[in-house]
Amino acid sequence: MTELFNALALDEARAALSRHLPEKRPGERVSILDSLGRCLALDVKAAGDVPGFDRSTVDGFAVRARDTYGATESMPSYVDVGGEVLMKQAPPGRVDVGQAWRIPTGGMLPPGADAVVMVEYTEALDKGTIGITSPVAPGENIVRRGEDAALGQVALPAGHRIRPHDLGMLSAIGVTEVEVGIRTMVGIISTGDELVGPDQNPAPGQVRDINSYVLYGAVAACGGEPRLYGIVGDNYEKLARTLEQALEENGMVLLSGGSSVGTRDVASRVIESLGEPGVLFHGISIKPGKPAIGAVVKKKPVFGLPGHPVSATVVFDLLVAPLIREGGYPEGGIKAKMEFPLLAKITRNLRSAAGREDFVPVKVSVGKEGTLFADPVLGKSGLISTVVKADGIARIPSGKEGVATGETVEIKLF
Amino acid sequence: MTELFNALALDEARAALSRHLPEKRPGERVSILDSLGRCLALDVKAAGDVPGFDRSTVDGFAVRARDTYGATESMPSYVDVGGEVLMKQAPPGRVDVGQAWRIPTGGMLPPGADAVVMVEYTEALDKGTIGITSPVAPGENIVRRGEDAALGQVALPAGHRIRPHDLGMLSAIGVTEVEVGIRTMVGIISTGDELVGPDQNPAPGQVRDINSYVLYGAVAACGGEPRLYGIVGDNYEKLARTLEQALEENGMVLLSGGSSVGTRDVASRVIESLGEPGVLFHGISIKPGKPAIGAVVKKKPVFGLPGHPVSATVVFDLLVAPLIREGGYPEGGIKAKMEFPLLAKITRNLRSAAGREDFVPVKVSVGKEGTLFADPVLGKSGLISTVVKADGIARIPSGKEGVATGETVEIKLF
Repeated sequence: MTELFNALALDEARAALSRHLPEKRPGERVSILDSLGRCLALDVKAAGDVPGFDRSTVDGFAVRARDTYGATESMPSYVDVGGEVLMKQAPPGRVDVGQAWRIPTGGMLPPGADAVVMVEYTEALDKGTIGITSPVAPGENIVRRGEDAALGQVALPAGHRIRPHDLGMLSAIGVTEVEVGIRTMVGIISTGDELVGPDQNPAPGQVRDINSYVLYGAVAACGGEPRLYGIVGDNYEKLARTLEQALEENGMVLLSGGSSVGTRDVASRVIESLGEPGVLFHGISIKPGKPAIGAVVKKKPVFGLPGHPVSATVVFDLLVAPLIREGGYPEGGIKAKMEFPLLAKITRNLRSAAGREDFVPVKVSVGKEGTLFADPVLGKSGLISTVVKADGIARIPSGKEGVATGETVEIKLF
Repeated sequence: MTELFNALALDEARAALSRHLPEKRPGERVSILDSLGRCLALDVKAAGDVPGFDRSTVDGFAVRARDTYGATESMPSYVDVGGEVLMKQAPPGRVDVGQAWRIPTGGMLPPGADAVVMVEYTEALDKGTIGITSPVAPGENIVRRGEDAALGQVALPAGHRIRPHDLGMLSAIGVTEVEVGIRTMVGIISTGDELVGPDQNPAPGQVRDINSYVLYGAVAACGGEPRLYGIVGDNYEKLARTLEQALEENGMVLLSGGSSVGTRDVASRVIESLGEPGVLFHGISIKPGKPAIGAVVKKKPVFGLPGHPVSATVVFDLLVAPLIREGGYPEGGIKAKMEFPLLAKITRNLRSAAGREDFVPVKVSVGKEGTLFADPVLGKSGLISTVVKADGIARIPSGKEGVATGETVEIKLF
């Protein structure tokens, strides 16, 4: 059946997955204190104006701006002290023409006033009169009612990933719980026949499992909930049973490929035996990462990831991470929208083949004037140390046959 | 006592804190599965070579490279098939001159061989003989013993923040637990007299607490464990008691300032009443964020943060976050070392005062050729919406009296 599937371009692979996955996955309500890094499932609107009243941003005197026009240090404008605004109290009266009311930072602007003069620009003449030594414009030193968030306005849009400041906005508008996309639970099955766990001593010919742990970290880093299902060898029945269980218990399953032909064959046969629509592609025209398998069964994505750590990382970043991050909802924000958000000058010539997207681990440094430099990490893609030494990945688009030293390439940082 | 403290430069403020804080804080052992984002307390060294043997990276034939020199498609080099390497088994013999051994990807290189020919560059002549159609150099298609990590080599240095790939490296070298810096528990006390919680409806003159929630998120985002101690008004005794309790229960305390004079005064008096060395600075020559207070008591840092959300954010990022992140250990990695790691062209003129560092919330976009543009978000620093609209912060160094449109500034992304 494998023969039916040709290598797809990255965009085609994504489109194939999107066609078979539900557009929206369920959301859940969480306290705003648990919402950091999660994606909003719905627009969050302000249920009232914030602040709920015009508010002074300085300690000083609430005035009618008009009464201060022309005031200077040598020719102050004299006004009567009409009253005092106290914190957390509505002002007991209004500011009349020629009056000033004492007001603290954060105090509620009394009716009649349209500006606040900082205390530094006033001088006490007697108990009931002050001189204003500098004019203010209407609105000066005031936060207007609804200026932070206005009633009915979308304070944070659906799909927005919640950052620390957003918790402040949510609190400001009186929201204590939000509806966010559910965390994707991701089952990780290691299929390498020659693999042993990190707690074991490899016998001759054996090596410790690396990719399951890279994937465990990568799933957690993009907001999913990873679960390891251990190492399954090249036994078809056992792998099929484990995959079935993992699919039952999770929203997505990753098969972390072993490098031997036998294991690869078993893994791809098991994935291909899944129900409809089953395998969507077997092979993507990228390097590294070409042998990746993408499937959908019971509306859940299943990926067969290549055995080399660099390859597995690239495929994860390009195809798997976006599905986990979104939780089924569109993403917001500059960084989320741009997969390779930065540009850097490459520090050496790299070959590529036209018609294939190439991805290269790079060390990144900042030059004068802000130019970023991407220095390819030359290491075998079978080594985990190659990725560990890198700060990010550079992309060489499929139209190009390579890049020359000094050319600009798109990069993403890990 | 406040009068004794002049505004310190940022570096001086940091130096003052460092002098009074212990250089190392205790570490704890955690499973590698719980170590993501934590900082290593100690170097992690490889206890053996990884891989433990020379390993083929392709499916093919293990050979002596010398036997393939000069091979072409029209003039193949003919060699005898001497045996076969099976997965997870030591090869049962050695490769003699003029011999080739079948070997799978990941298989252990037999003694005698120094390279592997990919199966694509061989043709079967008869059962016991193959023709090699392309030469290999010694070492080709092989990962050498210890090439990923060599016995005794530092695989990950102390201070390194653990990323997903590092879990793979740790697994590869057989490490299942690591010693990491402890998570800093951070008590957050809100001191605004006019504040109410997000679950309450503000009466006239009241507003909901914003900063405690911004700080809660900011602490969590840099790896600390935040705890809210609620809103304490301008009652000296109550604030002193709450602060004492928070200091007892946490490794750091943040007083999130209210905006009224009364509350500010009480907060600074309470902080100043702490034990030795107590308040180290009251005021930093930065804008916004000038009124920040820094203190150390019982070897734990206490900060009085300004009431405006933008100011609180800036002070948190510059002074508080590094202490939480490090957990007492030095940080590694390009991003960690550079607080303002990127450069961008500013899109409008900004004034500043010489002798003061200025920080401006900015929206960031990527132009052609990779230039980043920083567009100042013009909003009052008392509004949370000002920070919510921004992608990051730009820094105008203290030597400058402003920046002109198109000038390059240092930025950090949120």
